[in-house]
Amino acid sequence: MPCQTSEELQHLVELSKKYAVNGKVADYIPELGKANPNDLSIAIHYPDGRCISAGDISKKFTLQSISKVICLALVLIERGFDYAFELVGMEPTGDPFNSIAKLETMVPAKPLNPMINAGALVVTHMLKGNTVEERINRLLTFIRQLAGNPNIEINEKVARSEFETADLNRALCYFLRQHKIIKEDVETLLDLYTKQCAVEMNCLDLARIGMIFSMDGVDPLNGKRIIPGEIARICKTFMVTCGMYNASGEFAIKIGIPAKSGVSGGILGAVPRKFGIGIFGPALDEKGNSIAGIKLLELLSRSYRLSMF
Amino acid sequence: MPCQTSEELQHLVELSKKYAVNGKVADYIPELGKANPNDLSIAIHYPDGRCISAGDISKKFTLQSISKVICLALVLIERGFDYAFELVGMEPTGDPFNSIAKLETMVPAKPLNPMINAGALVVTHMLKGNTVEERINRLLTFIRQLAGNPNIEINEKVARSEFETADLNRALCYFLRQHKIIKEDVETLLDLYTKQCAVEMNCLDLARIGMIFSMDGVDPLNGKRIIPGEIARICKTFMVTCGMYNASGEFAIKIGIPAKSGVSGGILGAVPRKFGIGIFGPALDEKGNSIAGIKLLELLSRSYRLSMF
Amino acid sequence: MPCQTSEELQHLVELSKKYAVNGKVADYIPELGKANPNDLSIAIHYPDGRCISAGDISKKFTLQSISKVICLALVLIERGFDYAFELVGMEPTGDPFNSIAKLETMVPAKPLNPMINAGALVVTHMLKGNTVEERINRLLTFIRQLAGNPNIEINEKVARSEFETADLNRALCYFLRQHKIIKEDVETLLDLYTKQCAVEMNCLDLARIGMIFSMDGVDPLNGKRIIPGEIARICKTFMVTCGMYNASGEFAIKIGIPAKSGVSGGILGAVPRKFGIGIFGPALDEKGNSIAGIKLLELLSRSYRLSMF
Amino acid sequence: MPCQTSEELQHLVELSKKYAVNGKVADYIPELGKANPNDLSIAIHYPDGRCISAGDISKKFTLQSISKVICLALVLIERGFDYAFELVGMEPTGDPFNSIAKLETMVPAKPLNPMINAGALVVTHMLKGNTVEERINRLLTFIRQLAGNPNIEINEKVARSEFETADLNRALCYFLRQHKIIKEDVETLLDLYTKQCAVEMNCLDLARIGMIFSMDGVDPLNGKRIIPGEIARICKTFMVTCGMYNASGEFAIKIGIPAKSGVSGGILGAVPRKFGIGIFGPALDEKGNSIAGIKLLELLSRSYRLSMF
Repeated sequence: MPCQTSEELQHLVELSKKYAVNGKVADYIPELGKANPNDLSIAIHYPDGRCISAGDISKKFTLQSISKVICLALVLIERGFDYAFELVGMEPTGDPFNSIAKLETMVPAKPLNPMINAGALVVTHMLKGNTVEERINRLLTFIRQLAGNPNIEINEKVARSEFETADLNRALCYFLRQHKIIKEDVETLLDLYTKQCAVEMNCLDLARIGMIFSMDGVDPLNGKRIIPGEIARICKTFMVTCGMYNASGEFAIKIGIPAKSGVSGGILGAVPRKFGIGIFGPALDEKGNSIAGIKLLELLSRSYRLSMF
Repeated sequence: MPCQTSEELQHLVELSKKYAVNGKVADYIPELGKANPNDLSIAIHYPDGRCISAGDISKKFTLQSISKVICLALVLIERGFDYAFELVGMEPTGDPFNSIAKLETMVPAKPLNPMINAGALVVTHMLKGNTVEERINRLLTFIRQLAGNPNIEINEKVARSEFETADLNRALCYFLRQHKIIKEDVETLLDLYTKQCAVEMNCLDLARIGMIFSMDGVDPLNGKRIIPGEIARICKTFMVTCGMYNASGEFAIKIGIPAKSGVSGGILGAVPRKFGIGIFGPALDEKGNSIAGIKLLELLSRSYRLSMF
Repeated sequence: MPCQTSEELQHLVELSKKYAVNGKVADYIPELGKANPNDLSIAIHYPDGRCISAGDISKKFTLQSISKVICLALVLIERGFDYAFELVGMEPTGDPFNSIAKLETMVPAKPLNPMINAGALVVTHMLKGNTVEERINRLLTFIRQLAGNPNIEINEKVARSEFETADLNRALCYFLRQHKIIKEDVETLLDLYTKQCAVEMNCLDLARIGMIFSMDGVDPLNGKRIIPGEIARICKTFMVTCGMYNASGEFAIKIGIPAKSGVSGGILGAVPRKFGIGIFGPALDEKGNSIAGIKLLELLSRSYRLSMF
Repeated sequence: MPCQTSEELQHLVELSKKYAVNGKVADYIPELGKANPNDLSIAIHYPDGRCISAGDISKKFTLQSISKVICLALVLIERGFDYAFELVGMEPTGDPFNSIAKLETMVPAKPLNPMINAGALVVTHMLKGNTVEERINRLLTFIRQLAGNPNIEINEKVARSEFETADLNRALCYFLRQHKIIKEDVETLLDLYTKQCAVEMNCLDLARIGMIFSMDGVDPLNGKRIIPGEIARICKTFMVTCGMYNASGEFAIKIGIPAKSGVSGGILGAVPRKFGIGIFGPALDEKGNSIAGIKLLELLSRSYRLSMF
C-alpha cells in the first residue's frame, strides 16, 4: 500500500520547517555535513497498513543514534535482561551523549544508560557473532524485518567517514576496556558500531519500525512477533527517559511520545497502540536533535493529544 | 465509603515485606528515625470511589519529597509554565537528590529539575503568599482538597527536626541565592519548605491524591477539576522521569508507573486513567526509596500489567 | 625609618601599570568596587629595616584572601599541626577558589587546602576565643605585631558589605557543617571571617609582614620570634603551591616567590631570607589576582633573579 | 669515583623500610608486579663528585613517571617555552594522575600540567624526530648525558607489558586527539611513551640526574651545561607543585624538596645547589608514591633541614 500525502501533515511540516534556520547540520562526521538543512519529511505508519506522509519521503538518511534502541532490542533478545544490564545502567543523565566524566566517578565504570554513547558501545559489544560481518548482518536482518524492507543497506561512505573521526568513541571504548566493561578489540568494535550507525533508510521505513514498537513488537498485518512484548516495552521506556539526548526530560514534558533521535536528523517515534512515526530533518539544535523535527512532533502531539502521560 | 482490605493485596504485602530487612529507616532527620522499619501498608483508590488496602493503613507519615510534585502542581497553577521553568529545568540527572555539584557547572545555576532538592526549593520559593503561614496554608488547602480530607495537618515536630538539620538544603539555598535563582530570606524559605515536607497523612489520603492525578486532575465523583489537565500531565511526566530519585530510570523500566517517593518511606502512584496508589514502608534502599514499597509496586505492576509503556 | 622611593622600582611600576587596563576591579563585594583600577604601589622591606617603594604607598586596602595565610599561621600556633590538618588538606586544586563541587566528591568533605575559601573558613573556624570580638582581636593583635603597626584596624564598612553578599561562603559553611567539618553557628563564623578579610593596611605594612615570613618568623631588628620557624615555613609552602588561586602553578613557574593575593588587589610576597614585598593594584585578572601586580612581580623576579627554584 | 656506603644513611633506611608493609607494588603493569616490596635503596650525589648510599644500589628499576620531568626538559630545549605551554598548562590539580574528567570541563581540552598522564603524553608528543626510534634515541642520549652513564637502556619487556595494558592512556590520547591537542597516530605515541617510561637505571644514575637539576643544569665536574638554567628551574618548580602526584602539596609541606616519583617506586630528588637524590622502594602508597621512599625523604629533610621553604 503506497503512502498517501496528507495536506494536514503538510501544513504542520510547513510551520515547523521555519525553525530549521536556527539549527545546524552535524559536521563532525564529514559525510553528514553534506545534508540539506532545509529538508523536512515525515511518515506516519498505522497498524492497519495505512500510511500518511509529507515532505520528500524518498530522501535517505543514516540511523546514527536511532540504531542504539534497535540494537538494544536485538541484544536483549539474544542475551537477556540480566546479562545486558550487568554492564549498562538504566538511569538518565543530565550530561551530553558523548560525555566521559561520569565513567570516572562511577564504581564500577558502568555507563549510566544504553542511549549515551558509552552505553551504546557496550550494547553493540554484546551483539552476538564471530566477525563484524556476521554481527552487522544479524542486526541488518533484524532491521529489515522491522521495517519490512529487505533492501535496507549500510551507507559505507558514511560508515568510513565516521570510523575515521571516531576518536571520542575510541576514548570511551579504551576507558571501558581498561575497566573490563568492554573486552574485545576496540577497532573491531568501532568498525561494527560505525556500520550500525550508518544503516540507511527513509522516513517510511523508520515509521514502520516505530509502528512495530508501538504494537509491542508484533507485526499487526500478519500477527508475527518480531520483538518480545517485554523488550519492546523496555525500549519504549528508554526512549522516554533518555531517547532525546539530554533534552529527553523536556521532550517528555512537552511531547510525551517514546522517541529516539540521531545526529543525521532522523527521529523514530512510537505512539503506544496507535502508530509509528519517521521524521527526517537534518538541521540540529545544540543538543543534537532535529530542530524542525522536534517542533513538528510538538505540533502533532498538541493537535492530536498524543502524550502518553 | 470505607476502604476494603484485600486478601490478594495482603499476599503481595507479605511477599514484599521481607525485603525491608535490607533497608534502613532515614535517620538524618532525627524524628524520621523513630519509624518502624517493618511497617508496610498500601491503599488503592479507584475513580468510582472504591478503595482496597492491606497493612495498617491508619499509620501516618510525612510527605517529605512527595510534597515536591504536589507543590509543583500548585505553583504551575499559580504562576504558569513559562514563569516556573525559567528558574528550574526539566531534565533528569544521574546525581543524588541532594547534590550541589551540577549547580556549579551549569550556566545559569538553574537546578536540572523540580524533583531534586535544589529544584524543589526553587519551586517552593515560587509559592505565592506574603508570609510562611499564608503560603503553607495555600498548599495545605490544596493538599486537603486533593486528598478529600480536611483534617490533614503538619507534623510540627518533624518540621522542626528537619529545619534544625537542614544544613545541606541551606547550602543549596545560599548557592542559589548567590546566583539570583532564589531571592528571599533563606531561613524563611526553609521554614516553609520543611513544613511542606512535614505534611502528614496516611496511605488512604495519598492513594486518593494519586487517583486525582491519574484522572488528569478531576475528582470523578463530583466532576470538579482540582488541577488543570495539562498540569496533571506535566506532574505525571516528572514522576516518570525523575520521581524516584536517581533510581527513576530503573523504576520506569521495571514498573512503569508515574510515582513519587519520600524519605519517610511513602510512595505516591498514579496509574493513568486507572487508579491512585498510596504506600508506606519506612525502610529505605540506598537511593532513598522505600525498599519494600518498590518491591510491592513491582509485584503489582507485573501481576496487573500496569506499566504505561 | 621612612621608606625611600626608588627610581628603579618606579620604572617597573610604570611598565606594569599599563596592564591594568586588561583587568577589572572586584565588584561582587560592593565596597571593593569603589577602588581606582589604575592604582599600583609597591613596598619592599629588608631585614635590616631599610625599605624602598614606588607609587602612592599611603593608599589603604583590605587584606581579603591575604588574611588566609596569616590566620593559618595563628591557628597553627594556637592549635598545632595535627589538629589543624585533621580538618583541612594540603593539596593544591585546579578549581576556582570559591568552588564547592570537590567537597561533594571527597570523603570526608575536607577542603583540599587552607587557601581556597572552603579551607580558609575551616581555618578561621579554628581560631580560639569565646566571642567574635575576642577571636578577631587575637588575630588583629597578631597582625599588628607582624606589621609592627599598632594602628591597623578593620574597615567595618567593607566587612559589612562582604557579610551581606557572602551567600556563596554561606553555602560552603552550611555544606561543611552538614559534614561536621564546621561545628559553630554559620553567621557567627561569617561575621568573624568577613572581619578578618576586612583588616586594612597599606603596602608598607604588608611588606613588613612579608619580611617576617621571609625571615622564618623572627623580627630581625629585635631578634624576637613572632612565628615558629616551622610554621613560617609551612605558610610559605602554601603560598607557593596555592597562594595565587588557580594561577599558582603558573606563578611559581614564572615568578617563583612565595606570595598570597587578595581580591582587593593586594599581594603579599616573602622572598626567603631576602625581603618582604607588599603590592596594591586593584585591577584583577580573571582568576582574581592583581593583573598589574603580577606583572610587576614578574619583572622584579626576572631582573633580580628572585625565583627560589 | 665509587659510591661510599653511609652508616647514617643506612640507619634512616632501616627506619623507613618498616613502612613498606603498608604499601603495595604496582601491579596494573604486570612486569612491575614482580618487584620485591621490601627493597629500599638510596644514593646521594654531590656536585664535587662524592656519592654516599645505602641499600642495594645495584638494583635497577624503570623510570615510569620520573621520565615526565626529563622529557619535559628535552622538549623545552627543543621546542621552547611558548610552543610547549600552548598545549599543556602549569597548574597543579587535586585529581589522580590518570584522571580524564577535567579534560572534558576545560576549554580547550588542555591538560592542566605536564606531570599528570594527559599532560605528559602531550609533552612526549612534542619530542622531535621522524620515527619512534629517532625520538626515543634523542631522549635516551639526553638521559645518558644527565646520568653520565652511556649504558642506560630501555627495558623492552616492561615497555611491552605497559604498552599492552595502556588502555587508560589510549583513552586519554584519543580524547586529546579528538580535541586536536595531539595530532599523531596514537599507537605510535604510546609506543614512544611506554618506551620512555621503561628507561632503566639504578639509584646512582638517578641521583646524578638529580644533581644536574640541583646545579641548574650544569655538570659541575666539567662545567658543561646540559640543560639551560631557566629550563632546569622550570622543571624543579613542577617537581614541587606537581611532582608527587596528588600528594605533591603534602610533600612540599612536609619535605620541601623538588622531587618526582614513578610507580616503579623510584624517586628523583634535586636539593637546589646542594645535591641530587635517587631512591628506589617499590612498595607504593595509595597515591602511587614509594611509601618507604617518602618516609626516608621526610627523615632526611628533617635531619638536615633540606626544605627549600
